[in-house]
Amino acid sequence: MNIFLNFASILLYLAVQCQGSGTDIALDAKATLLHRIDSLNLLIYTCLLTLTVLTIWVFKHRRVSWLHETGLAVIYGLIVGAIIRYAASTNQVTYINVHPAPDTKYNLSVPPDMLRLHFPDKMQVSSGDAPVPNKTYAYSFRGEIVNVEQNEIDLKATFDPEIFFNIILPPIIFHAGYCLKRKYFFRNLGAILTFAMVGTALSALVIGSLMYGCVQLMPASLASSFTFLDTLYFGALISPTDPLTVLAIFSQLKVDVNLYAMIFGESVLNDAVALVLSGAIQNYELRYSNDGGFEITAFLGAIGDFIGIFSLSLLVGALMGCLTALMTKFTHVREWPLLESALFVLMSYAAFLIAEVCELTGVVAVLFCGICQAHYTYNNLSSDSRNRTKQLFELLNFLAENFIFTYIGVSMFTFPKHHFDPWFIIAGFVTSVLGRAVNIYPLSFLLNLGRKPPIPMNFQHMLFFSGLRGAMSFALAIRNTVSEARQAMLTTTSLIVIATVVLQGGAATHALAYLRIPTGESGNDENDALPYRDVRSDTPRDRGEGSTGQKARLARLWGAVDSKLLKPLLTHARPPLTETLPAFMRPLARVLTTTHQYTQGDNSLRRTDSDSDLCIDEQHPIPTSIDPQQIWPGLVDTRISVEGITGSNI
Amino acid sequence: MNIFLNFASILLYLAVQCQGSGTDIALDAKATLLHRIDSLNLLIYTCLLTLTVLTIWVFKHRRVSWLHETGLAVIYGLIVGAIIRYAASTNQVTYINVHPAPDTKYNLSVPPDMLRLHFPDKMQVSSGDAPVPNKTYAYSFRGEIVNVEQNEIDLKATFDPEIFFNIILPPIIFHAGYCLKRKYFFRNLGAILTFAMVGTALSALVIGSLMYGCVQLMPASLASSFTFLDTLYFGALISPTDPLTVLAIFSQLKVDVNLYAMIFGESVLNDAVALVLSGAIQNYELRYSNDGGFEITAFLGAIGDFIGIFSLSLLVGALMGCLTALMTKFTHVREWPLLESALFVLMSYAAFLIAEVCELTGVVAVLFCGICQAHYTYNNLSSDSRNRTKQLFELLNFLAENFIFTYIGVSMFTFPKHHFDPWFIIAGFVTSVLGRAVNIYPLSFLLNLGRKPPIPMNFQHMLFFSGLRGAMSFALAIRNTVSEARQAMLTTTSLIVIATVVLQGGAATHALAYLRIPTGESGNDENDALPYRDVRSDTPRDRGEGSTGQKARLARLWGAVDSKLLKPLLTHARPPLTETLPAFMRPLARVLTTTHQYTQGDNSLRRTDSDSDLCIDEQHPIPTSIDPQQIWPGLVDTRISVEGITGSNI
Repeated sequence: MNIFLNFASILLYLAVQCQGSGTDIALDAKATLLHRIDSLNLLIYTCLLTLTVLTIWVFKHRRVSWLHETGLAVIYGLIVGAIIRYAASTNQVTYINVHPAPDTKYNLSVPPDMLRLHFPDKMQVSSGDAPVPNKTYAYSFRGEIVNVEQNEIDLKATFDPEIFFNIILPPIIFHAGYCLKRKYFFRNLGAILTFAMVGTALSALVIGSLMYGCVQLMPASLASSFTFLDTLYFGALISPTDPLTVLAIFSQLKVDVNLYAMIFGESVLNDAVALVLSGAIQNYELRYSNDGGFEITAFLGAIGDFIGIFSLSLLVGALMGCLTALMTKFTHVREWPLLESALFVLMSYAAFLIAEVCELTGVVAVLFCGICQAHYTYNNLSSDSRNRTKQLFELLNFLAENFIFTYIGVSMFTFPKHHFDPWFIIAGFVTSVLGRAVNIYPLSFLLNLGRKPPIPMNFQHMLFFSGLRGAMSFALAIRNTVSEARQAMLTTTSLIVIATVVLQGGAATHALAYLRIPTGESGNDENDALPYRDVRSDTPRDRGEGSTGQKARLARLWGAVDSKLLKPLLTHARPPLTETLPAFMRPLARVLTTTHQYTQGDNSLRRTDSDSDLCIDEQHPIPTSIDPQQIWPGLVDTRISVEGITGSNI
Repeated sequence: MNIFLNFASILLYLAVQCQGSGTDIALDAKATLLHRIDSLNLLIYTCLLTLTVLTIWVFKHRRVSWLHETGLAVIYGLIVGAIIRYAASTNQVTYINVHPAPDTKYNLSVPPDMLRLHFPDKMQVSSGDAPVPNKTYAYSFRGEIVNVEQNEIDLKATFDPEIFFNIILPPIIFHAGYCLKRKYFFRNLGAILTFAMVGTALSALVIGSLMYGCVQLMPASLASSFTFLDTLYFGALISPTDPLTVLAIFSQLKVDVNLYAMIFGESVLNDAVALVLSGAIQNYELRYSNDGGFEITAFLGAIGDFIGIFSLSLLVGALMGCLTALMTKFTHVREWPLLESALFVLMSYAAFLIAEVCELTGVVAVLFCGICQAHYTYNNLSSDSRNRTKQLFELLNFLAENFIFTYIGVSMFTFPKHHFDPWFIIAGFVTSVLGRAVNIYPLSFLLNLGRKPPIPMNFQHMLFFSGLRGAMSFALAIRNTVSEARQAMLTTTSLIVIATVVLQGGAATHALAYLRIPTGESGNDENDALPYRDVRSDTPRDRGEGSTGQKARLARLWGAVDSKLLKPLLTHARPPLTETLPAFMRPLARVLTTTHQYTQGDNSLRRTDSDSDLCIDEQHPIPTSIDPQQIWPGLVDTRISVEGITGSNI
């Protein structure tokens, strides 16, 4: 890197020094240089990811379990970040101080978007013999300069935080929604919603208050730079969990599906909750400073914001998902799988963008869009598109996740807006642990009062232990780093993420053993002592009809609406609407039912209607009703040709 | 759009007006607004693409052939661009003029990268009661302002041209390389290389010279702003062809594979050639102005540049492809298809980035990387990864291509740096047609002197007719729009692309009929009069061994190296190196041969070694050696479960 940059500097220097009058050419050279630096940054991350992939392979091959791929990505990122920081010390950026022109009329209190500079104007520039022609150049707003000396590092291996929210997060969150195991998710809906909604808010409040208390006890310079809203914002951003590592180990060791569903479901939803919560806190800040004191109004407004934005975003996502389902049901676009897949991807991304444009939360929209796409649209897709969308988002999710963790490592050293404050960091670590405890234990106690198979103590400990912090916390922290308080938050958040992912992730296997949480396939049949025995269902088919009594009432109500109205409307599933709707709506029902729906047998219903064959499910490999190999060994060949046909079926 | 922006302006206005001292909050609000405008831009393109996908489906369904999807994308883009241009008239950007601070020391002839503005300093800002605190803000270099009034449109639905080169083009070019039908490509290698290398250079020279002549005849103001190098650059950027539409029709109508290979192969390579050529011209400009007159040196330098950059880029791409092949051959990463696919994607993108960082041409590297990946790595991949990479790049290519054509349409109205000059546009149209003619007819004549089955006249006319211009021309034109000359080139290029894609693309079917080029499957067996009869090979298996005599000598030499050295080294193909290398290299050969390679039978060789089952090939659907349906109808079920297993095999 160092060599490249120096080489580039020399080139640029030569280009600039040798020129006659060609300012245009020098500008071209500068643009080329900037492009190469961009490419170099991308290349660094590409190489880091490649290295991560290869190391993961070695780890999987050698069955190393004490370090997960995300932990690995973070560690590689840290190493490379340190190298970039301390090895490459080129000062690329040239700058001058400017003043407004004397006759400028401008009366907003925010700085202007653009500056226009006449160059070289009256400045003395050493251009050799020929004079440099006067031209006007545009400069666009970049941000506040807090620490003037750190300007130079600005170009090194950092990205615009907007990239996280527009490019990196959507596929991760969509994939989570697309892969949510809906059966177990709905069975534990009560617990999941409690932990994710109430728990996250509670955790944010507790962390915010404790941090505010801590900050007050610290040196005055620090105390004055944090308001209560700042620490509350920190509470909101550090509350969402990202237990990737733990879940990977769960899959590997085949841990109880309900525990898996609770941890996964909670982590998916609390990302969304934290994002909306942090937005509401920022809006509160805005409103509070406007009204100048009406705290109650502002507080109620923030709660209204939270509920309104969350439910509207949910609605946008769900509607886009349902719209895609309708499109794929009532058109024959499935005859062209490429068009179908493109439509699927575009509609899902549109859900994100629509929400963002309407000042809602795109991540929440894309999450619920993913859930709807999996629940409805997936059933209408051609098998080629099913495969393609599944594999596409799996790959995107893998790359995006590892990229974000690599970036967390690298940015620890290269991001110019870090502020190391040991007191704040220590307080952050302690309160984030406390916040997780406040989320899990009291709420589990309350839940157990009304829950038939209570959440046993070792499961509670495991829930507590799964409170790793990850991508969402980091993305929220890096989004806004204008003030010193926010910069201290970013540093603390980065450190918490790194520590939890590497250390807690690495210790997950031991925690499972220590807490005596049963693992392994043998658990499916033998562990009768397990309190979840009677809700466990080992085949994806709903053999659990008998356990309906244990489902939450909400889940039961939803199940009725879903199977009688939504599924027949949005997919080719039976029974058709003509059988489920009341008599007076039959004409409408007839219009909304496809021939396919009337004519198909129960066999194909079973096939298309199953939620379970959707996602990569290492816990329950899809049972092949007929094993082709048993009937005719030559089928290995068939499999290949079937794939060939599917691939070329465009 | 208009509504959203106005609504957003009001919100921002309120936020700014109502605040007390909170400049930070106003800045937050401004950042939010900018983010929403970004999202809106993306949403516009997402909706346009969705609309395009749906319309394509309708067209395919109704068998409309007079408009291809790219033409459709352009037209939709034009309509929406016009709406944005004339309906939305909000002026979002605030700006002030600035002067350097009096004590500034700066002596470079290029404008600085950054400006630092103390705000509000001594300016009067109406912030109500509270004073606005003085802060330092950073502004980064954006570009030259040519037309001051057009500032306002800057934010509307335009993207940084760098995005084309770093994000949009690589997947398109990689896909082209990954899908190149190598058999027919190598069989027509001589013609393809002649058209792509010699022809493109010739075309650029002819167009450049003619344009320079035309410009001299025009009003003096115009003549003075174009140098010969400018027009030569125009020649280089308008020379590459992009006959997507024509090729899609070829596939549909099953036109002769050799004609297909020539047109596709030429269009793939001439993109690369034109890119390197335009770079060499720019370097020439640089060198010429440095030496101040040594034209011969500069000219030879440019030729050296061209050859050096092209072959080094080719080398980088090919090496990365071979490295991936080695990685997938000698590790067992194929046991984890997700890791394998990720590795494949990352290595391919790294090829692009390495070339860009080394000041080579990433597009050329990624093209040859794609060819190597298809030729070697593909054979080592697990069937899951084959499928996934194929489908992934197919989808990315589809989305990227349609995005670029939509953008060409929209930017016609929204891009601020257009310069409409009717004379230049007319001259551009005429010379680009002449340039294509100079490329095809004389070179075909020369080729026919030494070519066994000569290129018949109607094929030459079809080659001439396939000279549509597309993505590469546009990307090159929009890359640099600093001067008025470059802006006139962008406008002319956009118009040529739009006209050729919509009109020529629409007329392709008629052209085929008019030129009596045989179409249809019946041609496979019956058209004995066809001059290509004896090189046609209707099954992908190499039944054409007897026609080796007609292959170019280059292709034969390459074939020997490939099958005796490269394939055994890089893939699991037989014969192994132990059989092909001379005796003294046996120990080395033994190390480089896998157990798999020794043990596999000829059967599996045939399967993994076939080039033909790679890409979506509507012309030759892959023959299924055994049709599962004929043996046992219940296999429909098996197919689904096989897919399920494949998907969960991670």
